[in-house]
Amino acid sequence: MIRVGIVGYGNLGRGVEAGLAHAPDMELVGVFTRRAPQTVDTQAPVYPLANILDYKDQIDVLILCGGSLADIPDQGPMLAARFNTVDSYDNHSKINEYYQQMDTIAKQAGTVCVISTGWDPGLFSLQRVIGEAVLPSGVTNTFWGPGVSQGHSDAIRRISGVKAAVQYTLPKEAAMESVRKGEAGELTNAERHTRECFVVLEEGAHPEVVRQTIVTMPAYFEGYHTTVHFITMEELKANHSGIPHGGTVLRTGRTGSKGTLANYSFTLELGSNPEFTASVDIAYARACYRLAEEGAYGAKTVLDIPPKYLSASTEEELRKYKI
Amino acid sequence: MIRVGIVGYGNLGRGVEAGLAHAPDMELVGVFTRRAPQTVDTQAPVYPLANILDYKDQIDVLILCGGSLADIPDQGPMLAARFNTVDSYDNHSKINEYYQQMDTIAKQAGTVCVISTGWDPGLFSLQRVIGEAVLPSGVTNTFWGPGVSQGHSDAIRRISGVKAAVQYTLPKEAAMESVRKGEAGELTNAERHTRECFVVLEEGAHPEVVRQTIVTMPAYFEGYHTTVHFITMEELKANHSGIPHGGTVLRTGRTGSKGTLANYSFTLELGSNPEFTASVDIAYARACYRLAEEGAYGAKTVLDIPPKYLSASTEEELRKYKI
Repeated sequence: MIRVGIVGYGNLGRGVEAGLAHAPDMELVGVFTRRAPQTVDTQAPVYPLANILDYKDQIDVLILCGGSLADIPDQGPMLAARFNTVDSYDNHSKINEYYQQMDTIAKQAGTVCVISTGWDPGLFSLQRVIGEAVLPSGVTNTFWGPGVSQGHSDAIRRISGVKAAVQYTLPKEAAMESVRKGEAGELTNAERHTRECFVVLEEGAHPEVVRQTIVTMPAYFEGYHTTVHFITMEELKANHSGIPHGGTVLRTGRTGSKGTLANYSFTLELGSNPEFTASVDIAYARACYRLAEEGAYGAKTVLDIPPKYLSASTEEELRKYKI
Repeated sequence: MIRVGIVGYGNLGRGVEAGLAHAPDMELVGVFTRRAPQTVDTQAPVYPLANILDYKDQIDVLILCGGSLADIPDQGPMLAARFNTVDSYDNHSKINEYYQQMDTIAKQAGTVCVISTGWDPGLFSLQRVIGEAVLPSGVTNTFWGPGVSQGHSDAIRRISGVKAAVQYTLPKEAAMESVRKGEAGELTNAERHTRECFVVLEEGAHPEVVRQTIVTMPAYFEGYHTTVHFITMEELKANHSGIPHGGTVLRTGRTGSKGTLANYSFTLELGSNPEFTASVDIAYARACYRLAEEGAYGAKTVLDIPPKYLSASTEEELRKYKI
């Protein structure tokens, strides 16, 4: 059994705990948290993060479930010096830097650190790279959604007069179709997506003022086709409390000498974004453990890892039944 | 530049020749054939296969483009003893055996042999394994088509009274939808597909007799919903001379403790089946070359190869721009 520790117990940490029950070859050692352990609502053992080194010999891999903004940049390097780790660091523009930092620490410490896994970055990165490699003449478009964007929902909630809000990112079907037919190239974010907002107002707030503030918000909504619906708190709770997400990586290319069209597309439709991210993290924790057993120390991205390491089956079983 | 040789010049060999023009880091050394070289219609240098050892120092990787039934089982082991090779061996039930044989030879010879690549086996195998690893509680269904099945077209052509024929395998959209909703499990081949045949009759042949022979043919059509259209040779040439194909690998699973639905799906829509297969072979030839440079000798399947090796970009470029 591969012995797994969870660091941080938000949506992702809870997803890892539940996901480990689906993995026949892995077991949960415990949850490590900065909160007071008795305040954490779980059946699993909970320990103070400050004491994690005491559990070093009982843990094969740590799955880091904190946020990419405040937690991972500190926790990753600190924990990589003592443990094999898996994280979902998702600040795309800094992944290479983070990789270099983690790689140096892990090589020195004799650990394996799988960074930036999950679905984007993660499985979507994998598909972008493979799609481009097998269709070198072409364009790649990543469409996100339909799904809840946490960042955009938070941005709306910060507007004065807003009590609660959920924002859905929706892929433009017509844009996807036009790419697929070979008629469009690499589209911008706003050309690929629309945004739909469900907003509960504070008493006395003016809907039109809030709507204008949303649709003109720079970096978040400006330039997008955005729809705003005002609903009650009851409606929000009844119909918008899930965290679905997904999307499509679409590589459209030309093969041969006559420009024959080929479409390579990968789609995720996820009832729960954090549960699926957790599920991917768990598969990469298995790979992390195996790489460490082989002594292949250092930082790894999804691009560095042979796919067979993700599976609980043996190599021979995979060749016999899955290829 | 990675120097590539092509062995065999049918549809796949022609696809590799055209595909190499899309690869900035690879060049074609020549085509090796059992035919008389002057009868091969290409601008590339053509050499007798019997003399291939004379070109050993000019070739980094050979792409084997012969058939899986008669050519690869002989050529693979013979050439693996001297060259790095890539093949699309697609006899699924014998892949593990073939792997063992090639692995022994390649390790002894100090070569790398990538076997059974292309799209199925190949990219579809990769998606089946990753899909199952990230959604361990679930079902995998592979839908083929819409596309031309060479084997089924050939089977129809062997019927007395048939002059020419093309068979399309079509995925059942309703079956796919029902799997996607979590309502269906692992379906049989006949539950996933229908078959549509376009047939040109010999003069005097009886359509109903031919139709009955087709739809009741064991192993090929029996048990399937099969439609037969009789058309003229002109119509066949005008509308059915392409070799499109594709399909979908669909992993439907449950995440978390409450059985949240998640769909992982990978779809190829290919204007030309052999051109795309060639394109995949070329990306794996790049990986083959790199593995050989590293001294990672032996047989490899798509499951053994870190995805980064497929790309012409550097690891750092991939981390910066693709993850």
